[in-house]
Amino acid sequence: MNFKNLDKSTTFETIKSLAKINLQDSLNPERIQTYQIKTGAGLTYNYAAMPVEESHIQAMQTLSEELQLVEKYQAVLDGQIMNPGENRLVLHHLTRGQIGKQVVADGEDKGEFYKAQLSRIAEFSKAVRSGEIVGSTGKKFTTVVQIGIGGSDLGPRALYLALKGWADASAIQQLNAKFISNVDPDDAQATIEELDFERTLFVLVSKSGTTLETLTNRDLMIQAIKESGVKGIDPAKHLVAVTSKTSPLASSSSVLDAFFIDDYIGGRYSSSSAVGAVILSLAYGFDTFKAFLDGAHESDVAALNPNVKENAALLDALIGVYLRNVLKYPSTAILPYSQALSRFPAHLQQLDMESNGKHVNRDGQTLSYPTGPVIFGEPGTNGQHSFYQLLHQGTDIVPLQFIGFSDSQYGKDIEVEGSTSQKKLNANLVAQIVAFAQGKDDKNPNKQFSGNRPSSLLYAKQLTPEVLGALLAHYENKVMFQGFTWNLNSFDQEGVQLGKVIATKVLKGCEGDQILKAFADLL
Amino acid sequence: MNFKNLDKSTTFETIKSLAKINLQDSLNPERIQTYQIKTGAGLTYNYAAMPVEESHIQAMQTLSEELQLVEKYQAVLDGQIMNPGENRLVLHHLTRGQIGKQVVADGEDKGEFYKAQLSRIAEFSKAVRSGEIVGSTGKKFTTVVQIGIGGSDLGPRALYLALKGWADASAIQQLNAKFISNVDPDDAQATIEELDFERTLFVLVSKSGTTLETLTNRDLMIQAIKESGVKGIDPAKHLVAVTSKTSPLASSSSVLDAFFIDDYIGGRYSSSSAVGAVILSLAYGFDTFKAFLDGAHESDVAALNPNVKENAALLDALIGVYLRNVLKYPSTAILPYSQALSRFPAHLQQLDMESNGKHVNRDGQTLSYPTGPVIFGEPGTNGQHSFYQLLHQGTDIVPLQFIGFSDSQYGKDIEVEGSTSQKKLNANLVAQIVAFAQGKDDKNPNKQFSGNRPSSLLYAKQLTPEVLGALLAHYENKVMFQGFTWNLNSFDQEGVQLGKVIATKVLKGCEGDQILKAFADLL
Repeated sequence: MNFKNLDKSTTFETIKSLAKINLQDSLNPERIQTYQIKTGAGLTYNYAAMPVEESHIQAMQTLSEELQLVEKYQAVLDGQIMNPGENRLVLHHLTRGQIGKQVVADGEDKGEFYKAQLSRIAEFSKAVRSGEIVGSTGKKFTTVVQIGIGGSDLGPRALYLALKGWADASAIQQLNAKFISNVDPDDAQATIEELDFERTLFVLVSKSGTTLETLTNRDLMIQAIKESGVKGIDPAKHLVAVTSKTSPLASSSSVLDAFFIDDYIGGRYSSSSAVGAVILSLAYGFDTFKAFLDGAHESDVAALNPNVKENAALLDALIGVYLRNVLKYPSTAILPYSQALSRFPAHLQQLDMESNGKHVNRDGQTLSYPTGPVIFGEPGTNGQHSFYQLLHQGTDIVPLQFIGFSDSQYGKDIEVEGSTSQKKLNANLVAQIVAFAQGKDDKNPNKQFSGNRPSSLLYAKQLTPEVLGALLAHYENKVMFQGFTWNLNSFDQEGVQLGKVIATKVLKGCEGDQILKAFADLL
Repeated sequence: MNFKNLDKSTTFETIKSLAKINLQDSLNPERIQTYQIKTGAGLTYNYAAMPVEESHIQAMQTLSEELQLVEKYQAVLDGQIMNPGENRLVLHHLTRGQIGKQVVADGEDKGEFYKAQLSRIAEFSKAVRSGEIVGSTGKKFTTVVQIGIGGSDLGPRALYLALKGWADASAIQQLNAKFISNVDPDDAQATIEELDFERTLFVLVSKSGTTLETLTNRDLMIQAIKESGVKGIDPAKHLVAVTSKTSPLASSSSVLDAFFIDDYIGGRYSSSSAVGAVILSLAYGFDTFKAFLDGAHESDVAALNPNVKENAALLDALIGVYLRNVLKYPSTAILPYSQALSRFPAHLQQLDMESNGKHVNRDGQTLSYPTGPVIFGEPGTNGQHSFYQLLHQGTDIVPLQFIGFSDSQYGKDIEVEGSTSQKKLNANLVAQIVAFAQGKDDKNPNKQFSGNRPSSLLYAKQLTPEVLGALLAHYENKVMFQGFTWNLNSFDQEGVQLGKVIATKVLKGCEGDQILKAFADLL
């Protein structure tokens, strides 16, 4: 395989020289029907309102081949060391199903390892949900609390919220799920106020078993349980761990059970591993989680197609690079028209910005072009009454990614002024895409919309577990392809280290560093 | 008063020509102690890690005088028409107290009008909380649900969450508050699933009384109440309105009572009006809300100081303009080290982007310089495990605004490895400021931090109602001063109109617009 920086690509020079598209002129019904690609579980990527046409797409096809983007993905699937900085394999796809070669590492078949953990989680969650496994005072568990931070928090939390309405409407037995992440003691305390400890199972997630925030929050929780005065309650019987086999938590008597992850799945890619599996299987049942994995697997398979016109994640990635490196847009908004996806943008913010917010290439050499953009977003229609003002009429252009569904999750609706709420929701979504692309002329510049503001749309019939899996995998694969295009390592995160080192110095009394001391004295 | 575009200012030309500061060299303990300004309720703005020094600050003082920034604020307070596009006064400061001249409009003293509404809200909330006013089946209200969108949602929701821990710790009697905003029917339905209608009071917030999302969600709620089968329940006795005097809701028999707002307070500035007052007084008591207003009033008074070194909002605004228009940074992150402020960045996103995301000046002429930046953020320490990678090592620089408190709200903590959680939280905050400013050299470029990444810090002893008010008003005034500096109207929002118009066309069957129809057919 060849690894070269994007500015060494001859195709990229061609792409830069292609004529720029004005969406006001080019958007038409035919484009809307043909500029789209199906990925997993019926999820479809529509790029009709993106500033590309046939010539760009053909050049992106050539770029993909020149940079061997699909071959690099195949190398990930086949278990090559694609996280060079940490000398690790990248195996999150394998938690959804085997696509590439058998992967052997640490003396074991990793596909079998993930499958075995999943079976254990299926069994455990079934036993908890049926009441076979109960709390230490004999009461059935009704609440499950995940204690973890970063990837152990944002992904599982976003997915839990995304499936709540679907599970309610499907009359699925549920355990209530809560999440504690922040080292701010108020985060744990606010949750403690709401808990019945006898009926609560905690899931402690830390790969190393040493994450300070997470262990501290565990200790806060154990202290609260002890102070609760419940007779005979044993915290160890209310706690399971998700950790690596070699961590101090793996075989600790302080936990009821432990489920294993390994070094080949980064935190932000861990939702489909035991990190997401335990809490989501407990909350909604293992079958729901399995359906989510199946949808993700379908998107993973679809992402292997070498034809950019048939590979949603790949084309989404390349258009994103075009927006970033040719049109020079510094940020992207994620706008789901679905309240269930309220925290999904926060997860994607982590996924994208932690993966591709890098200034060096995979060999550690400084890059001379922009990489990952700032990612932010909130659900529509709420955002329309808020920050959309800047998106429509601000001085900078912000590319947009809309997400929408034909049907609501609950299916409970009302007709007001001739239309249902779901219909209104989607009418707004469509209207926004067109308003951003076409704009509107007006004699009064204050009522003028310049238009030509690009957006794409990811849509499906309904937000089900399968579709959610397909959606998550689409973004994971998009981010991966962009990392390959920028020739950087999307799977390490050296940028989070310095803060940790300095925080330790502050906690030790600043060791004579006057600047640290002066700041610390303020607080 | 003179109104001129920023690029017509001679002082601004001077500022552009000043030497750029490198924070790695200039950050020192003396700066940390002196580069700070107190505003309301002890809240302090520290700008030691911002790329300015004495020469910049002096030039900003001159710029402030040249552009008459404080005089323009005084004109707002005195009731001049400072929202020229809509020909309206701008009176949100007056809800917190009278600072300027007596303001008469619509034939009434507006200060007296806001005070009268506040008294009515005090009385009403007291009667509900004491059980004097009960539901239609005789049961005491325990839950209050705000139905509103945009400014009627984000601000009150963020403030409610911000005070929950404080209220818990203060053993204040509480009504549980919930919020429904999105026209997505799943938003309402998810809340309905959790409600005991007999004990629920709805607060319907719509200035015009015609906001489609809000009226639709009201109707969904009334339908659910009727379908609940509760005998003798009367929805009209479970609903109050916050609206304008002339709205159809004002004297409707479909509501128990109505509290009034007017056209002189925009949605995003309405948290300190009846829009925030009703729900927050019901949830936490009127005294709590009054303390919040008092804190805001203190910041409002502090923002009148003509000396930029003594006016936190003014200097924060001018440094922000420097970052945007001289250093050309397109976005800003808001990073509260307090889980209680989890939704505060979303509110500030609206406040800032809707106010200053404009491309024309106050006279409707196109501007030739960048205005409002993209605003985003999540609480720390969570973000450290997420998007901070890009903030530290990405190819673009993102200025940061940290928020921190010496003490937690609950005061419940634990010592692990020699420090409490609160201490760890603040050690991390301090460490981040220093890491961003100073960076770190390393032979391995992947472990290299270039530093010189600017940040400021807003801090106080604890997040109390007073401090929360001071914090909110600080940002409102900052955004206002930036709008003056850019010579735009921060108080209208023409950019939200086009989407509404097109959405109506879609709902009417697209009226022969083939592009709309093609998109609508997808969903």
